[in-house]
Amino acid sequence: MSNMLRESPYPMVSIADATAMIMAHTQPLGSEEIDALTALGRVLATDIAAPEDIPDVPKAAMDGYALRAGDGLAPRRVVGELTAGGDTTVALGPGEATRIMTGAPMPPGADAMIPVELTEERDGMLFIKRELKPGDYVHVVGQDVARGQIALTAGTILGAADIGILATLGLTRISVYRRPRVAVLATGDEVVEPGETRPGGAVRDSNRYALMAAVREAGGEPISLGIARDDIAVQRQAILRGLEQADVLITSGGVSMGTRDLIKPLLAELGTVHFGRIAFKPGKPTTFATVNGKLVFGLPGFPVSSLVSFEVFVRPALRALQGDARPFRPHVEVTLDSPITPAPDRPEYQRIIVTYRAGRLFATSTGGQGSSRILSLRGANGLLLVPAGETVYPVGSVLPALLTGPLLSEG
Amino acid sequence: MSNMLRESPYPMVSIADATAMIMAHTQPLGSEEIDALTALGRVLATDIAAPEDIPDVPKAAMDGYALRAGDGLAPRRVVGELTAGGDTTVALGPGEATRIMTGAPMPPGADAMIPVELTEERDGMLFIKRELKPGDYVHVVGQDVARGQIALTAGTILGAADIGILATLGLTRISVYRRPRVAVLATGDEVVEPGETRPGGAVRDSNRYALMAAVREAGGEPISLGIARDDIAVQRQAILRGLEQADVLITSGGVSMGTRDLIKPLLAELGTVHFGRIAFKPGKPTTFATVNGKLVFGLPGFPVSSLVSFEVFVRPALRALQGDARPFRPHVEVTLDSPITPAPDRPEYQRIIVTYRAGRLFATSTGGQGSSRILSLRGANGLLLVPAGETVYPVGSVLPALLTGPLLSEG
Repeated sequence: MSNMLRESPYPMVSIADATAMIMAHTQPLGSEEIDALTALGRVLATDIAAPEDIPDVPKAAMDGYALRAGDGLAPRRVVGELTAGGDTTVALGPGEATRIMTGAPMPPGADAMIPVELTEERDGMLFIKRELKPGDYVHVVGQDVARGQIALTAGTILGAADIGILATLGLTRISVYRRPRVAVLATGDEVVEPGETRPGGAVRDSNRYALMAAVREAGGEPISLGIARDDIAVQRQAILRGLEQADVLITSGGVSMGTRDLIKPLLAELGTVHFGRIAFKPGKPTTFATVNGKLVFGLPGFPVSSLVSFEVFVRPALRALQGDARPFRPHVEVTLDSPITPAPDRPEYQRIIVTYRAGRLFATSTGGQGSSRILSLRGANGLLLVPAGETVYPVGSVLPALLTGPLLSEG
Repeated sequence: MSNMLRESPYPMVSIADATAMIMAHTQPLGSEEIDALTALGRVLATDIAAPEDIPDVPKAAMDGYALRAGDGLAPRRVVGELTAGGDTTVALGPGEATRIMTGAPMPPGADAMIPVELTEERDGMLFIKRELKPGDYVHVVGQDVARGQIALTAGTILGAADIGILATLGLTRISVYRRPRVAVLATGDEVVEPGETRPGGAVRDSNRYALMAAVREAGGEPISLGIARDDIAVQRQAILRGLEQADVLITSGGVSMGTRDLIKPLLAELGTVHFGRIAFKPGKPTTFATVNGKLVFGLPGFPVSSLVSFEVFVRPALRALQGDARPFRPHVEVTLDSPITPAPDRPEYQRIIVTYRAGRLFATSTGGQGSSRILSLRGANGLLLVPAGETVYPVGSVLPALLTGPLLSEG
């Protein structure tokens, strides 16, 4: 033995440099055409120009009466009733009005309408109390969407309203970016499936399942590569199998300096390692490589290191691969509700709960921040960026943070 | 004809009273047992107590050497190498050390370890530069999770880290709240399927597809009931069919005061209408009923009214039905970046884009706020609650808002 290294051969890079190197190798994947009505969460690959005016004809904006504004306050003879979707209409002459329901096309001859609340109808005659101008209460052609207008732009993450916009325009097939396929490989002789009997001292494979869930949350399609034992031929084969199927490969464990840490040499053999150490806690040995143009992330084996490194380095890449115009989490400043102890040697992303209160964002620590303490992620909706140092930040200090989930609010 | 009403028979209720009435009729649905490793986004129905200690045996916290602290600074004889998952161990005597990799169980006889960076090894002897205390760099039993500790609480929305926690504990089957099945019915003679040829003046059914997407975003399982024309027998049958299959029914359109607005009388016939008007814009005619204990929401037909009423009134109910401990959106105060004109008669939820900047949240209007202008929802991540009034709120005013999506941040 004794390729247990005393010092890593990889230079330490900053968080910013690591991010820049990853994003420099990340371009949106191709697009695919899908059913617009089930496109929730997908990212639009093209601008969408409205093919027609909405509404396409002038319509009643409320329930009431269509009439001619020029008739003034004179009573009108009620000559019919028009409903949205009704198949008849009536041409209005001077002194005439017709009942009209919201959304019904305005009849020929009418140039305004009046809401029912402002009227009386007796013996077939309409009485109004307010003079009208042409166009009053009329929903005009193109008022909601004008023909040719860009209704949605490329890079939009499609939400419920966007699906409504596409349906309104009759666009049932759209072009979206492909979701990245992301293969996830666990490594380690000590790692067993969560559902199996666990020999004493062994650890259950939480990382692969947590990472696959995180991939799904990030819009990717996770592929499980199972657990590879600490054998270079076995791990090489698993990595190659993953790269065949996937756009991105994530490995868990095997990136430290122990004798069984085989991932970095393997990635150097198969492709290019862009960095192998980040000045960052938790997750210093996080590794980024490209193999045949595909992205490979070697994440550390401790559960917290694995998920925090995913959040900070992998998630933005997965978002950018699917064309998200804003691949990064929102960054804010938070006021500490609990004191924070920095790491002496490296900037650290500590897990916090961010609460909005009286105009400001406050952060509470999730407790002990050890790399193995997965409970430090429980309930966290933010990552606090704590600069390296020796001095505890007291309550009331202000530090930068990423928001990784919805804010809490009080009251 | 002329059941076109001049005044609604339903009293106007406040937003707060409407919410309280809905929540009073909303209890979590039953639970079901599912695969924990694919439970992303589900809501835990029970507390989870850890069935064992993690780690289960003392382990090396880093790569280095296991030894006996009491031997002081004396050189040690290196007697072996231990790896995580290796199947041998070695009992350490006085003056002995063994190489040990991160995560390997500590050998009998050892009470501390030293990281490789703080050592030298020459000719089978280990030299250390720092005295150690018993327990140094040892990952002790129960340090990450203690047996019996509540690792996750009922009501937790399961994220990636929570799935990792469950996997770590070997809990592969868990009890989660059932997702609500939500039937969505569009109504109106003027409404056609988005993919069909649209006759002049007809509108495509955007609401049903947008609402089904919003149901899915809220964790429900949408069921499409199609489009029912404005015929009371047809709509009655569609509603009954929906209630057979679903926990919740949402209708779109037909709740105003026009002659073809049949939903309110139908719901009054089939069950109990709790309210039929809300002092609220956009969405005054929003209706809430219960039929055989199931929740029914009659939403207005204008696209904006439909989605905003869903967000404000239906979504919290869907979250509460699936046991979410925090069914409401975060509420914050925002500073206006653009002037806001209130509605004279009713409080209004206007669609805004909320951006974090220099310690505060700023809101920009999405433009014209008409109920038919679905583009006013484009890009919105918040709803600004604008009190009724005649006076424009200038730039710099502070108003309450709901956050309906991730914040934007600058820089």
